[in-house]
Amino acid sequence: MNAEIICVGTELLLGEVLNSNAQFLAAQLASLGIAHYYQTVVGDNKERLQQAVAIACERANLLIFTGGLGPTPDDLTTETLADFFATPLVEHPEVIADIERKYAHRGGAPTINNHRQALLPLGAKVLANPIGTAPGMIWSPYTGLTLLTFPGVPAEMKQMWQEVAVPYLQDQGWGTEVIHSRVLRFWGIAESALAEKVDSFLHLASPTVAPYAGDGEARLRISVRAASAAAAKQLIEPIEQQIREITGLDCYGGDQDTLASVVGQLLHTRGESLSIAESCTAGGLGYMLTEVAGSSKYFVGGAIAYDDQVKISFLGVDPASLAMHGAVSSNIAEQMAMGIQRQLAATWGLSITGIAGPGGGTADKPVGLVYVGLAGPTGVSSQECRFSPLRGRDWIRKLSVRAALDYLRRILLSSDLPPE
Amino acid sequence: MNAEIICVGTELLLGEVLNSNAQFLAAQLASLGIAHYYQTVVGDNKERLQQAVAIACERANLLIFTGGLGPTPDDLTTETLADFFATPLVEHPEVIADIERKYAHRGGAPTINNHRQALLPLGAKVLANPIGTAPGMIWSPYTGLTLLTFPGVPAEMKQMWQEVAVPYLQDQGWGTEVIHSRVLRFWGIAESALAEKVDSFLHLASPTVAPYAGDGEARLRISVRAASAAAAKQLIEPIEQQIREITGLDCYGGDQDTLASVVGQLLHTRGESLSIAESCTAGGLGYMLTEVAGSSKYFVGGAIAYDDQVKISFLGVDPASLAMHGAVSSNIAEQMAMGIQRQLAATWGLSITGIAGPGGGTADKPVGLVYVGLAGPTGVSSQECRFSPLRGRDWIRKLSVRAALDYLRRILLSSDLPPE
Repeated sequence: MNAEIICVGTELLLGEVLNSNAQFLAAQLASLGIAHYYQTVVGDNKERLQQAVAIACERANLLIFTGGLGPTPDDLTTETLADFFATPLVEHPEVIADIERKYAHRGGAPTINNHRQALLPLGAKVLANPIGTAPGMIWSPYTGLTLLTFPGVPAEMKQMWQEVAVPYLQDQGWGTEVIHSRVLRFWGIAESALAEKVDSFLHLASPTVAPYAGDGEARLRISVRAASAAAAKQLIEPIEQQIREITGLDCYGGDQDTLASVVGQLLHTRGESLSIAESCTAGGLGYMLTEVAGSSKYFVGGAIAYDDQVKISFLGVDPASLAMHGAVSSNIAEQMAMGIQRQLAATWGLSITGIAGPGGGTADKPVGLVYVGLAGPTGVSSQECRFSPLRGRDWIRKLSVRAALDYLRRILLSSDLPPE
Repeated sequence: MNAEIICVGTELLLGEVLNSNAQFLAAQLASLGIAHYYQTVVGDNKERLQQAVAIACERANLLIFTGGLGPTPDDLTTETLADFFATPLVEHPEVIADIERKYAHRGGAPTINNHRQALLPLGAKVLANPIGTAPGMIWSPYTGLTLLTFPGVPAEMKQMWQEVAVPYLQDQGWGTEVIHSRVLRFWGIAESALAEKVDSFLHLASPTVAPYAGDGEARLRISVRAASAAAAKQLIEPIEQQIREITGLDCYGGDQDTLASVVGQLLHTRGESLSIAESCTAGGLGYMLTEVAGSSKYFVGGAIAYDDQVKISFLGVDPASLAMHGAVSSNIAEQMAMGIQRQLAATWGLSITGIAGPGGGTADKPVGLVYVGLAGPTGVSSQECRFSPLRGRDWIRKLSVRAALDYLRRILLSSDLPPE
């Protein structure tokens, strides 16, 4: 069993949307142990879609399509596949009924365009869409080839995949071997330095260990093919342990961990609370902390002190210090951290102040200069970060949030647990 | 001239990273007027990469590669291309010197792996990497075929593209015709309802108008092929005007506009300031507002009132109202908006309180119930939003931020300008 992903949509070729569907499906195929070697993106064009299908049929026996199922005239996936495999379309009354029910719920009526969504090739089964109006299909045009189609809207595709496609694929007994990967995530070390540190592992035949970079962090992927996820985990576990011993505190977690989830777990275990004060990131730290469900157990809130006046009024920052050191300084970062910790009576106060650009930089304080401040049981301290101004505002803000979390993480890991 | 994008990396096939490079390159090709009909993703595997190249050579005469140029042993793109076109690799001393300079700057030394990055096929030109150590190349293995390679790290790829590839492609005189698109962005109307409203435009042959959905909003793409961007804009302009007349306030902007940038522009024009108070979004609204460079002209800051105690201490929310109405209510949304407006002495106070899930929902107040509050010169008001709980925490928070911005936008557009 060998799958390919084909994403259909001129908006992808024009670069108007990010292809998050391909990422989701790729991760899902890997976890199901279904090999997958190519992804193709093609526009809403019948002839070129057929050419892509012709190539993929030669290489794979499970083709997964996203996009082109919508109600509008440029949505061509279903009829193009029917044509390619010379199969007539038939109408599914239950799909029309479902679309009408959904419109009634919203207080509207389906348009004539919606009726096209009820046409599927003869022999195809409806892959119901619990959210939107576009159903997908499960269709085997001939023995040894199965097609799955999904709408391009990520939330709909994901739910349909999980509720219908996963049980279907498991029932078929495809993917008897599992490709299992464990990703280790690092902060504070570059990819090439990490690769050098763990060089001996990079030449292993199985499990394989591969370094890569993403979102400003270095990562290692440990992968192995095994009969089951449990068997794979047993093979990966000792490698992970050895790598963790070599890399120490630089390894902050694995797989779905984020710096926010790791810090949250530490705070929760310690029974401590966190408050924040953000200047240049203006809420990015709070947003990332609360991406973790259940974060209200340790995160109380904070201040977005974008304007200096807010630093004074909400955080009690001393106006004379602001004038003397400037808002982007270790002194102000520390005052911000102390101020929010005191105001919200939290165990920890974590702050960020910096110059995200594009404007506002000077020779002395360039774009990319950021201070992280922390106040808590270990006292008050701060860290200076210098991010490359070349990478732009979004990148500097993203890295500032992560640097602040990592600063707190390292202090939590190296400080004693609070007394019972 | 006809291009294809080939993204190389097993991490893409395993779904570990989002392929933002393909989106960036696709948008760039469109703006340069270089046609592009397929994108392929393939792993770090020599044989399969060569098969992908063989197919792409038949369809296109400009192949753009990302990924597989890094310093680690699984980075195979350069040597695979050299092999495929039966060309020897030669070492470029200037690349080694550049790598050494970059390491010296960071206070380190290149590893042996970095030396592989200085090998390029005979006849290829170095495509310098101003940020990282991995250079790309510009190579024409035979007349009528050009290859461009870039590292997979998005920030490096983008800068190399803009500084070197764009001038190169323009010098070649490729892309004499321009495909120009204008995207119109909508909030508060579903894709199918929008498609019905503008149905007559969807059947135009040129410019074409196509609806699609993304990030919770409906969009229309107006595209045309013309001799220049200016000529294309002239063809698109009247269509845009007609669509805007039909769709009214639902159309909030176009192209790179966001609800945050549109609201910011309105506030800046009016000389007004904005403060915010966020509960379930915990900073997401502030982060989105400040993605706009120069937002300090109108955005002062706010409170992340995640815990109810912060709603009381920072925003002056009445504890009795909290007990009576619950934190997720129009009453509390309005008190939060009034509180922050007063505390930070801003023209407007905008608030969000809701249940993002997965926990915390009740029959009465389900996950996805969100209130947006606004206090300002027009008085105090609020809006109830009900987002589908099916789409999950991230989605609900993302849509809540946008709904709050849209609420403020509509009130700004329908209220008089302040007196001079």
